[in-house]
Amino acid sequence: MANSRSGDSMLERFVRILDSFDAGRPSMSVATLARRADVPLATAYRLVDEMTRHELLSKEPSGEVRLGLRLWELANRSSPALDLRQAAMPFLEDIQSVVRQHTQLAILKDDDVLVIERLSRLGSVVNQAKVAGRMPVHRTAMGMVLLAFSPNYVQESYLARHPEAVAMVDPVTFDARRQLAGIRNQGYASFDGRVDTDTTGLAVPVLGRAGHAIAAIGVVLPLGLENLQSIVPVLMAGARGISRTVGELPQ
Amino acid sequence: MANSRSGDSMLERFVRILDSFDAGRPSMSVATLARRADVPLATAYRLVDEMTRHELLSKEPSGEVRLGLRLWELANRSSPALDLRQAAMPFLEDIQSVVRQHTQLAILKDDDVLVIERLSRLGSVVNQAKVAGRMPVHRTAMGMVLLAFSPNYVQESYLARHPEAVAMVDPVTFDARRQLAGIRNQGYASFDGRVDTDTTGLAVPVLGRAGHAIAAIGVVLPLGLENLQSIVPVLMAGARGISRTVGELPQ
Repeated sequence: MANSRSGDSMLERFVRILDSFDAGRPSMSVATLARRADVPLATAYRLVDEMTRHELLSKEPSGEVRLGLRLWELANRSSPALDLRQAAMPFLEDIQSVVRQHTQLAILKDDDVLVIERLSRLGSVVNQAKVAGRMPVHRTAMGMVLLAFSPNYVQESYLARHPEAVAMVDPVTFDARRQLAGIRNQGYASFDGRVDTDTTGLAVPVLGRAGHAIAAIGVVLPLGLENLQSIVPVLMAGARGISRTVGELPQ
Repeated sequence: MANSRSGDSMLERFVRILDSFDAGRPSMSVATLARRADVPLATAYRLVDEMTRHELLSKEPSGEVRLGLRLWELANRSSPALDLRQAAMPFLEDIQSVVRQHTQLAILKDDDVLVIERLSRLGSVVNQAKVAGRMPVHRTAMGMVLLAFSPNYVQESYLARHPEAVAMVDPVTFDARRQLAGIRNQGYASFDGRVDTDTTGLAVPVLGRAGHAIAAIGVVLPLGLENLQSIVPVLMAGARGISRTVGELPQ
């Protein structure tokens, strides 16, 4: 569908520029940006100037550029992610005040787990999840619970595109479908040491009206301290609260 | 500095399109969007199509458009607001677990209070603050504390541009400068019923190395239940923690 009219290619370049920044690379020189975004250097200087005027980018005293506050404001004062996040926030806080470890909310997006929110506590265990960051589906409890509570065609197409997931998900029987059925049956996913060796990930689905996951709530627990029998019901109650708040409580 | 090259006008239109959405108007028809963004209808259709392809916008089944999840992801996985927010979050959570009311973080931006984060609790009092939303400086405790702990030239230029603030800030003596000095002196701002008639706003500055506010922490308390003597020290301790975390603790 893309074509090469100047307007179109400009939006494509604009998106590639934004896409060059991430949590590990929040600022860079214009030359680096031009290379990462695959934009000619002169064009990059011109675009950076104009984006800076609109505060979509901002220039640091060092000359490096980073994303601008205005971009954050425009993207956040109205967004689908924010609706879900606002609905979920009080429940996430309640969960965290009971569990006292990292508590996060994520959705399935383009075969990845996209983290919508993360509540951290000083002194909590290490946690790889970052807000607006992505994590692999089959390495995380949130991802597996999202997949397990997805429609069958979503599961099948994910497994077809990710043959490596099958071995990872169930190294004993290589039967990812059985494992997904098991998660659906018990209502939660729990993995030891898959993301970090000394933590356990635990996740439950936030179900929509059709009974499929619209999101997942996950907590990261120190290995050995997990007390699943007491924590799972807390997460499930919170998930039901979120479903109800967004008007999606399953019948 | 703006010129009329096609690339430039496209970015301007793009920003005006994003700027047409806010919390009160999260979705609209393309015709409404064209009118609000002041873009010709045919151009709006073309731009919406292209922005939708890149998931900067998304189309609802009704045909209305809203901001896309990809825009949220790009703007949030690396941003100055997010750095401050991530540093502040554990402290905001601790404050909220003690105070048990709305707890928020804001900065001064273009003569407005820009809300960076807001933690809400089920059953808290009403609160006008929205994440990425703006509030007037001289109607909020957060705004007044940000202004009071700003450099003198920032205060003076704000008061010069906002003569209405002077009467509002101190209806008895009309002496906004004296009131700002008072806030600086006591280290916090507290206003009854200025935003909502039955709430009190209370805010303290998060100070940077130069002794000026880099942010403010605010709580919204039910009128009559406020216990400032016990709450102010909790906010101040949290503010110092945030300063230290972002490497800005005043000497």
